Parts: sequence; structure tokens; C-alpha cells
Amino acid sequence: MHSIDLNSDLGESFGAYKLGCDEEIIKYVTAANIACGWHAGDPMVMTKTVRMAKEHGADVGAHPGLPDLMGFGRRKMMVSGEELKSYVKYQLGAMSAFTRAEKIPLHHMVPHGAISQFNEEWAHAICEAVGEVDDNIIIYAIAGSALDKIARAEGLKVASEIFADRALMDDLSLAPRSMPGSMITDEDIAIERCIRMVKEGRVTGLSGKELEIQGDTLCVHGDGPKALAFVRKISEAFRQEGIQIHGI
Amino acid sequence: MHSIDLNSDLGESFGAYKLGCDEEIIKYVTAANIACGWHAGDPMVMTKTVRMAKEHGADVGAHPGLPDLMGFGRRKMMVSGEELKSYVKYQLGAMSAFTRAEKIPLHHMVPHGAISQFNEEWAHAICEAVGEVDDNIIIYAIAGSALDKIARAEGLKVASEIFADRALMDDLSLAPRSMPGSMITDEDIAIERCIRMVKEGRVTGLSGKELEIQGDTLCVHGDGPKALAFVRKISEAFRQEGIQIHGI
Amino acid sequence: MHSIDLNSDLGESFGAYKLGCDEEIIKYVTAANIACGWHAGDPMVMTKTVRMAKEHGADVGAHPGLPDLMGFGRRKMMVSGEELKSYVKYQLGAMSAFTRAEKIPLHHMVPHGAISQFNEEWAHAICEAVGEVDDNIIIYAIAGSALDKIARAEGLKVASEIFADRALMDDLSLAPRSMPGSMITDEDIAIERCIRMVKEGRVTGLSGKELEIQGDTLCVHGDGPKALAFVRKISEAFRQEGIQIHGI
Amino acid sequence: MHSIDLNSDLGESFGAYKLGCDEEIIKYVTAANIACGWHAGDPMVMTKTVRMAKEHGADVGAHPGLPDLMGFGRRKMMVSGEELKSYVKYQLGAMSAFTRAEKIPLHHMVPHGAISQFNEEWAHAICEAVGEVDDNIIIYAIAGSALDKIARAEGLKVASEIFADRALMDDLSLAPRSMPGSMITDEDIAIERCIRMVKEGRVTGLSGKELEIQGDTLCVHGDGPKALAFVRKISEAFRQEGIQIHGI
Repeated sequence: MHSIDLNSDLGESFGAYKLGCDEEIIKYVTAANIACGWHAGDPMVMTKTVRMAKEHGADVGAHPGLPDLMGFGRRKMMVSGEELKSYVKYQLGAMSAFTRAEKIPLHHMVPHGAISQFNEEWAHAICEAVGEVDDNIIIYAIAGSALDKIARAEGLKVASEIFADRALMDDLSLAPRSMPGSMITDEDIAIERCIRMVKEGRVTGLSGKELEIQGDTLCVHGDGPKALAFVRKISEAFRQEGIQIHGI
Repeated sequence: MHSIDLNSDLGESFGAYKLGCDEEIIKYVTAANIACGWHAGDPMVMTKTVRMAKEHGADVGAHPGLPDLMGFGRRKMMVSGEELKSYVKYQLGAMSAFTRAEKIPLHHMVPHGAISQFNEEWAHAICEAVGEVDDNIIIYAIAGSALDKIARAEGLKVASEIFADRALMDDLSLAPRSMPGSMITDEDIAIERCIRMVKEGRVTGLSGKELEIQGDTLCVHGDGPKALAFVRKISEAFRQEGIQIHGI
Repeated sequence: MHSIDLNSDLGESFGAYKLGCDEEIIKYVTAANIACGWHAGDPMVMTKTVRMAKEHGADVGAHPGLPDLMGFGRRKMMVSGEELKSYVKYQLGAMSAFTRAEKIPLHHMVPHGAISQFNEEWAHAICEAVGEVDDNIIIYAIAGSALDKIARAEGLKVASEIFADRALMDDLSLAPRSMPGSMITDEDIAIERCIRMVKEGRVTGLSGKELEIQGDTLCVHGDGPKALAFVRKISEAFRQEGIQIHGI
Repeated sequence: MHSIDLNSDLGESFGAYKLGCDEEIIKYVTAANIACGWHAGDPMVMTKTVRMAKEHGADVGAHPGLPDLMGFGRRKMMVSGEELKSYVKYQLGAMSAFTRAEKIPLHHMVPHGAISQFNEEWAHAICEAVGEVDDNIIIYAIAGSALDKIARAEGLKVASEIFADRALMDDLSLAPRSMPGSMITDEDIAIERCIRMVKEGRVTGLSGKELEIQGDTLCVHGDGPKALAFVRKISEAFRQEGIQIHGI
């Protein structure tokens, strides 16, 4: 029987600012990637979101980012590998305080925004951070990415991440948003692609070429009513296809 | 035989900014209170300072503060107990990543600046934070303070902290800096007071009254050449008096 | 003929975070109090909001706050008068860059959150900041407050601010939110009170006492659909009562 | 008679952190580039440094940088031209509050760190920011850089900046620090080069080629005792060579 983990970025509110509809999305996902207070989130939001994930039985992961709240961690900053490693350690540690308080493990981590698009130096930095802090933490890495390969080579626990709405280049990297066709906007096509990736381990690349892909976890978005409707729809489709949604 | 722990605030540099002479002070103290990136410190500084403390055999503690880098965490901010609790948890967690990376325990924590001057709500918040994150962490609390009492009442591990250079009110609270005589500026008098506090458990208060005081750890300052000279001097005096300097 | 200025806090979004429905509220108000990037707002938001205010003919004011984005500038911080003065100057200057770029004056300033509840030291600090940067800037001060009195005594331009939804103590200060009856939740009563304050210069205090009050500008809130509906309703009521809404 | 402006980066302290020996350097320079609170500096430091510059008769300039205090504004961040423009406007405005308070003009601006190394989009952004805020502000641009050319083409006031300690590529760009010979470490050679640049408008490039260069202002460093000694030495050398040091 086929199965897949559903993950989503949560806990991105900050102070008086509310982002996303965490209270709804959490009902559908099996893994919560929770912001750690650098690009989004704050300790009050972390407290609340970790608790909410626990109540709904979702695995809690850290979602560390760059020190750029104004840019939501999406703008590349030229930090060194040593710097990035220390930033990731800091944020993993910070999140672990909230999981320990709730007596649950820090299950996984997913690099956010600009640090999810790696050069190899950064991928190594992230692996070292996880290895030094707690090698039970599963690294959620974009399927086929440098991080995916390096983390596996270093013997760390890895889950390969696939996306419902992103077209792929022949090397499995996400097609840049600037390319025509890079975003899969038709929901039915997106869902069909996901089903095929999960059941057959195959997907059609943007070039038209058939690609082999192995996904352990599927990323779904958490902001906006459209996102919520899509999560419901794909959950239902998976159920009908006999694909079980459960955590890793 | 008498003994005392010597603690100092370290790791207060930030980015391009250097503060203190940690490389020297670390040779004399048995406990390092390391800033956690909120009022001072950053992940690169934390990495380096935790490693330095380990090399010199000093116990590593977290030194959490308010989110006020510009004010060095010294300006009181009207945060709620729930907020403070979440801030302390966050910083304890962040520091624990660096101690875990060095395979040493997070030995203690010392509230910094404005949060070391407690109302009871804040004292409870700090205790709950420690209790939820890791109740092996020893709370260094100003001897006789609300935190000292509340932490003991709640069954947490506590070390009572005394000061070489601060005069005391009759309730053992630190005399406000604005009061004449609040700072003990004569080094020989300061050292004599310390010896008496450690050996006899007594000290003369600012009012002239004899006070009973129980100190487990003595705070020494870490910035400036004068601070360094004083640490050397008091260490030597303790040795001559047969007071052993070692960790808790 | 009676007239009143309507002011509202705008430009409180930050980075990826959106707050308020500025695009709607701006159609009804004559004065926009725009956040300056400390407790809320950022340079991109300031650019856009100043431009929007200009297009709708609303006067642009600076809305400076404390350096506490996480607390939205609402938490009192024990900064000194000198510090507060420099913070207000900084934010007035920053806002003036955007008004100069749009070739409009920086019309007024309104202290935000914790710095709107003054002790006299802070009130003086704000007056000095305005006096040094540009004494054409009108200070919007809570009617009867220390700032209102001190700014007038120092010969600065002042507009006394009244509120639709806040009950008053006998000294005209806003009744603390913790007191029963402090918030005027019935919209019709709120509007009647406003009409009477504007036309008769009188209002019934929380104690039942009749109070004299002089208001030049009325503060209306800008977040939530309810706020927008209220602004429409009070604007219509003013029109029917022959109270002209226009800027100062 | 030949003359040159001497500029230095000042006001880089922040809160409890002190950087540089501004009190000494200010005696030798004719232009102070003062940090604006983003990569360094804060409103209290700005107040003090602007006042100090005025007392010593040095022209006050704004030294805007990226929102990266932890990286001192040296790490490139992928901000858009629109973002950078708004950031520069904000910082120019903030600094202008302090010059207005001292009744002196905001004389010039010098982009800091990562934003001094331009792509053309950023150079245009900086020019537009200056043009919109106050086109009397002189842009100090690295001689021969994109900013130098674009600012002149747009009719803005520009001063071309030369460096005592940096070797040049054939296109006048600063040789990357990673290249052997990029830093001129011999002080006598550095001074000779400066004299030749000022008097003859010529310098030998790193490749050995003779280059034409036009410098209006020479940048000297302000941190460390060595920096101070060098400023004294080059000032003396200029005097002996009949090169007058004065502002633009």
C-alpha cells in the first residue's frame, strides 16, 4: 500500500501580525514545519503552534531561516557556511525547548526560503548543524537536491520532499518561477501528478521528459482559503486512490 | 573547608562588536553565563564562547534577556509572565543546541539585566520555563530574591548568588545604584566582605545592620582591565583564606 | 459651522505581514498617522502609504513608536527622555524622506502605543524632538494630556485628540481598559458622544460628571470590517449634523 | 594648488557596543560618513556623532546600509532596486533629522558595505533615492564605479572617492581582497600613491598598467590605533606636498 506524509509551513505569525490559517490546515497535515523566530514566528507563536500540532497528532519540525524578518527569509544573503551552521543550530535548539516542554520529539527540520535553495557549502552546513544538535532529526530535503544527496551521504535521516504545484527540470530541481509553465496552476493536473509521483515514482518534467522521483513527503501551502480547499481536495483524492496519509 | 563558585557574564559580543575580555576572564571563573542572542551575543559568538568555556573546564550557563539589543536588556519592558516564560524557554533552547554540539550539559541559567529584578510574576515565569525545558538546569538567583525563594519552593535546583561590589538592603536586595554607598568601590573592602560572606554567612548591610546571607556563587564582572585585575586579586585572596574555587 | 479632523493609524503592515484595510479607510479620513518602521511599518510600506494618503488628499503624519516590533510598541519600555527624544527625531526624519519625495509636508505626528501614555519627562522629550526637527509639525495629543499641555506651553502647534470609543476619567484621561465601562461599545452612543463633544465641547465622564473637552481631531480605528463600517456611519452622522470633516 | 577631502566612516557604535575612535579621527577628516542605524549606529550615537562632526567643522554625510546589524551590512542581500531605494530614502531622512536639529545641511551620502559594490540596478536606486529626498546631497561614489557614472549622467552632485590602501583593476574597480597584492599594506607606498593620484591624476594598477583616476575625496579608516596613526601621517605628508585638505 502506498503512503505519503503531508507537510506544511505553520507558525509564521509574528507579534500582532497573523499569517496563514494554521487552525484549519493543521487538521489535514501530518507534519508541521514551524518557524523559529528569525524569518517569521516568535516564542509565543511557537508555544501555541507546537501545542496545536501535538493536539492534532502532527509531527513537529523546525523551519529555520535567515535573519531577515523584513524579507521573510526569502532574500538570499551571502552568509558563510560557518554562519549558516550556527544559525541553524540556534533555531533547532530554540524549537527544541518548545517540543521538550510538550514532551514530544523534535521530529524533523525543513530549511526555509533562501536557505532551501542550496549551494553545496550551505547543504553541508545544514547537515553539520543537524548532526551536532540531534541526529534523530529528519531532514526534509527537496527530492534530488544537493541537500538530499549530501545528507544521505553523511548518514543522516532524510525525507525527500515533493511539491504539488511546481514543475521540474530534468535534474529534478524546481523550475524557476520565471519560466513559463513552472507553476502547476490546474488543481486536477497537480493532483494527478502527485498521485503518479507517489504510486509510480514518475513525473513528466517541464521539458516533456519522463523523470524518476522518490517522494517521502508532500509540501502543501497553508495560507489563503484556496490553499485550504486544495489540501482538502488532495486529501480526498489520496483516500480514493488508496494512498494513506501518515507521518514518517 | 569552604568553597565558592565564581561566575561571570560572557559571550556578550555581537557581530562586528566586541565586548569584554572573555579570553582572559574564562581562566579564573568556574561558571560562564553566556548571552543568548537577544540582549547580546549571536550564534557565532555562542559557538565560540561555549567551546572556550568547555576548554577551560567552566560550567556553561544560559544568560537570557529581554528582546532589546539597543538597550542591552537593561531597560525594563512590560512583558507579561506568559511572554517572559516563552522568551526564556526560547533562549534556553537556543543555548542548549551549542552545549549539545559540544557534548556538555547546559549547567545553569542566570536571568540578565531587567529580568534579574523580579516581580513575583516574572520569577514564576522563569521557574516554569526552566521546569518545562530541563529541570536539571540550576537557577542562579540573587540571594534572598523572589526568584531564589520561589525556585526553591517549587523544588528546582537553585544557587544563591552574591556580589562583590554591591551593598545590600536589610532584605538582602541589592541597594539601588542611585543610593549613596550602593557600590563597594574599595577592592580590599569588597574582598573582605566576600570572604566573610563565604566563611561566616554574614555581611554588614548598607543600614549598618548585620545580615545573614548564604551564597553559593559569586558574580564577578568581565569587562575592562580593572575587572580582570580584580578577579585575579580575589582569586588569590580566596586561595590564601583556604576558600576553594570550584563549580557547583 | 462645526468641523472636525478624522485621523487613523495606517501603514502598519510589515514585510510579508498585512495589517488593516488602509485602502478603504483612507477614503474617509483627513489625517493618516503612518508607522515609521519601529513598532510597525517598513520603508516599502511607508512609500506606498504616503503615496496613497496624498492621492486621497489626507494629511500625512508620522506615528513613531518604541523599538519593539514583537510587542507592536504597546509595551512600556523604561527608556530615558534623551533616548525617547532621539528615537522620535529618527522616526520623524525617516518619514520626512517619504513626504519630501512626494512633495508634500510632514503635517503632523502622533505618538504610538506606550509613548502616547506619558509621564512628563517623555512629553517634554517628544516636544523637543518636534521642535528640533521641524516646528511646523502639528502634535496630535490626547485632549487634556500632559503632552497636550506641555506642547501648548512650549508654543508648539497642537491638535487635541478625542476618541469615539473610550470613556473618560474626570481629568479627561482615558479610562483604563481594565475598568468596567471604559470602552464605549454601543456605536450609536459613541456617535452621539462625538457629536456632542464637537458641537458643545462637553461629554459625560465615566463618573457621571459633565466634562468640558475641546477636540480638534477624532481618532478612528482602521483594522477590521467593523472599524470600516463605523467610519462610514460616523461620517454620515457628521454630515447630517452639519459637522464638516476636514483636515487641520 | 591641489586639494582633497578626507572622509571616514564614523558613528558605528551601537547601544552598549563601542566601535572606532571617533573622538580622535574627527580631528583629521573633513567629511564624516555617519551610520544610520541599520548596519550600525543608533539614534543616540547619531545625535552625538553629528554634534561632534559639527564642532570639528567636518561635513556630515549619511552612510546607509543593508538591514543586517549582525553582518554589519557587509553581506550582500538580494534586495530589489525598489527595496534598496526605499531603504536609502529612509536612512537619508533619519539622518536629516539630526542635521536639522543641529542646523547644518546633510552634505553627502556614502553607500556602505554590500551596497557600495553595485550592480547598475542598485546604482540607479541610490540615485533615485537621493534625487527624491534632496538633490543637494553629494553622492560619494567609488571613482570609476557604476554609481559614479550613473549619478553624473543623471545630473546629481558626485564626488569620486579614492582609497589609500586598495589596489585597482584596469577598469578602476577595487581589486578583490582575495587577489594577491589587493591591499596596499606599506604605508609609505600608500601615501605616495595618494599624492600621485591627487597631483597627477594617475596611479599604477595591479596589472602594472598606468591608470588615469580623478579623486575628489579620500577614504581613511577610523578603527584601531594604526588607523589613527596613518591618518596623522598622511595628513602631514599632504601638508608637506602642498596638498590642502578641505571639504567639498
